[in-house]
Amino acid sequence: MGADDRDGFLRTFSAFSEIGAKNGGLHRLTGTPEDGAARSLLISSFRERGYTVARDAIGNLFGFVLPPGERPTILLGSHLDSQPDGGRFDGQTGVVIALWAARVLEPKIRSGELPFNLGVVNWTNEEGARFQPSVLGSSVFTGRVPIQAALGATDSRGATLGDCLAAIDALGTDEVPLPSAYLEVHVEQGSILEREGVDIGVVEGAWGALKLDVQVSGVQTHTGPPPMEERVDALYATALLVTAVREMGLDQPGGRLHTTVGSLRITPDSPNCTPSEVRSKVELRSDDPAILIAARAELEKTLAEIGRMTGASLVVTAESLRETTRMWPKGPEILERAAAGCQLSSRRMKTVAGHDALVMNSAVPSLLFFLPSVGGHTHNRHELTEDRDLVNGLSLMVEAVESLGKEYATSPTDERDTASRDSA
Amino acid sequence: MGADDRDGFLRTFSAFSEIGAKNGGLHRLTGTPEDGAARSLLISSFRERGYTVARDAIGNLFGFVLPPGERPTILLGSHLDSQPDGGRFDGQTGVVIALWAARVLEPKIRSGELPFNLGVVNWTNEEGARFQPSVLGSSVFTGRVPIQAALGATDSRGATLGDCLAAIDALGTDEVPLPSAYLEVHVEQGSILEREGVDIGVVEGAWGALKLDVQVSGVQTHTGPPPMEERVDALYATALLVTAVREMGLDQPGGRLHTTVGSLRITPDSPNCTPSEVRSKVELRSDDPAILIAARAELEKTLAEIGRMTGASLVVTAESLRETTRMWPKGPEILERAAAGCQLSSRRMKTVAGHDALVMNSAVPSLLFFLPSVGGHTHNRHELTEDRDLVNGLSLMVEAVESLGKEYATSPTDERDTASRDSA
Repeated sequence: MGADDRDGFLRTFSAFSEIGAKNGGLHRLTGTPEDGAARSLLISSFRERGYTVARDAIGNLFGFVLPPGERPTILLGSHLDSQPDGGRFDGQTGVVIALWAARVLEPKIRSGELPFNLGVVNWTNEEGARFQPSVLGSSVFTGRVPIQAALGATDSRGATLGDCLAAIDALGTDEVPLPSAYLEVHVEQGSILEREGVDIGVVEGAWGALKLDVQVSGVQTHTGPPPMEERVDALYATALLVTAVREMGLDQPGGRLHTTVGSLRITPDSPNCTPSEVRSKVELRSDDPAILIAARAELEKTLAEIGRMTGASLVVTAESLRETTRMWPKGPEILERAAAGCQLSSRRMKTVAGHDALVMNSAVPSLLFFLPSVGGHTHNRHELTEDRDLVNGLSLMVEAVESLGKEYATSPTDERDTASRDSA
Repeated sequence: MGADDRDGFLRTFSAFSEIGAKNGGLHRLTGTPEDGAARSLLISSFRERGYTVARDAIGNLFGFVLPPGERPTILLGSHLDSQPDGGRFDGQTGVVIALWAARVLEPKIRSGELPFNLGVVNWTNEEGARFQPSVLGSSVFTGRVPIQAALGATDSRGATLGDCLAAIDALGTDEVPLPSAYLEVHVEQGSILEREGVDIGVVEGAWGALKLDVQVSGVQTHTGPPPMEERVDALYATALLVTAVREMGLDQPGGRLHTTVGSLRITPDSPNCTPSEVRSKVELRSDDPAILIAARAELEKTLAEIGRMTGASLVVTAESLRETTRMWPKGPEILERAAAGCQLSSRRMKTVAGHDALVMNSAVPSLLFFLPSVGGHTHNRHELTEDRDLVNGLSLMVEAVESLGKEYATSPTDERDTASRDSA
């Protein structure tokens, strides 16, 4: 890869960063005009290179170097949506590196020197910020979430994902088959690589995540006359829940349980009423399924205890488990060799955050690697991955695709049985 | 007052209750089409009786039995707006009783037997639910809040009160002068009258209320990777605040401090981000100015302590004090005599909630009395005041207006100096 490719790649990254730019970060929520504009730029980039563009029923957007169907396909990608007031590197890094890796490898693909096809994908709604759940596009693609359920997901104002995607012309009818393998690069969203001075994080597995909707019901009343001890205040009960959830994480030895309440829906949310209902999003994450099981049980006890204390009712109305995941075992070996070939240092790690690569890993051999995040800042405008590291990511992606393609592209699905998930 | 008046009054009450009816309660927020429809029904009721209709610049809606300006005027009223999922009796009771009291007294007014004019008013945005502050219409009317500030108040989606009132054609240009006196009947919103089996609560004063906006600032980050102890989670800090505020109220001997956080604005409110900012509405209410002063000081200490514990910054960005109020001292005497004349039992009480009558009391002699609330339910759909008590309220209003008018309507402003507020 020459200096021209390097400069072109960084220019493409800047061009994408301008769409939905806000205070040095990105505000590009799924299904908004900004999301639509980023998709349009990706389509233009595909067409410019003569790629075959495909869009499926949930709006996943693909570009294939050769028309699909002729050869086994390796798919590269990530997501272009962001968190509210999020950063420029979460997701976008993986899409732009995928795009440029395809561009660098294009001649060898077209000539047949590399005997496979290459596709680039932008997955819909990875973030799960405006619409839940997260990693929705890849989950529909792999058949884990039914398309109708996905299109019917609503934002806080009741707009459906389907309507919002239709409004930005993101929906298609193409039926895209599973690829032979999937690769993704993402920013670390932590500070381990920076702290240890390592170039590349080779992801060998993922923490499990248990996401719960907790509904707290109290009695709506005036904030003035009712005596304090007669009130059944759903927001007070929720405050005890938020505090207890955080303490569960803090109390776990070794930092092996991360716990958060990130979002509340308060009804009626009037300054002059104690709320009748608060719906909260609770997350429990751990690398150890046993810790998650214990935390879930402790949460149940906590809900009952807060109910007894406050008179409110606290009920888990929905929960979804992303099990602890082990990536396709040959992936880290391939990535480590490729990194060494690029003179890049690497270490193995687990991801705490969810990624489309984890979803894809349940269906096809999938590889995921991380680039350093300065200061570990993530899901905010301070996200930063240095140009040097972005370029390292592109180099490694090119090298890894060549290695993977040579070794496995012809029949990688024979290795499917070794891709497994621990139970949690 | 005959059986026809009684039945007609209850039918009018039912007709108003149908506008914005929801699950047995009312959902009729300021500046919504439902608010507009309730105002239209009131205008029709005025016109039907040949009253002079007036609307001022903040949308306060008046109907005068005689054209204004000819005689001293006694004004009766309350408000037609409700809390979200609120009840049928809060506010509406006072407007419908005012309307029917005017109707009953009309012949004596027109004949000159009662030597004053009578007006009925619906005050804009008493509730302060969609737009803050509360009691806004009467505050503009009495010059306590500038009209431009009031019209510029925004709801949670950024719509201004002025635009919303214009959209329902509620704004006018009439300049309505201060009346000679003001009377209001409201439901108790507590259970003292019911518990003691008393018909009428004669309000002699009001608790003070200190309303504060507290801004909690943390660091927005991913809910997954960041270690628990490195997070500066604004929602966690807010949870500690909600808990501390409630405990301040519970800990005050004698139930003389009511404390609530009723509303939060969370940014970004994504399930996958710890929030960067939470804005909360804190209320402290007491009948004793010294308790309020001490609670305000304790709150400041609490904010600093939570800041030290969490790393978040907690700042009071706005605060407004409604001082403890003493009603015009002759009012309770008049109401007690009038109640006795109606064979109704009464007791004196203080109001914890704010009312337009408290605002009016700062400008003209004002009288306020309460009717029993079944179970003390308020600001929810279970609000109930029995028909018998509603009719009692109408009887007492008629009696009180006659007494007041005879004694004071010709020169009640001579008594202004005795209407006073305690300092808080």
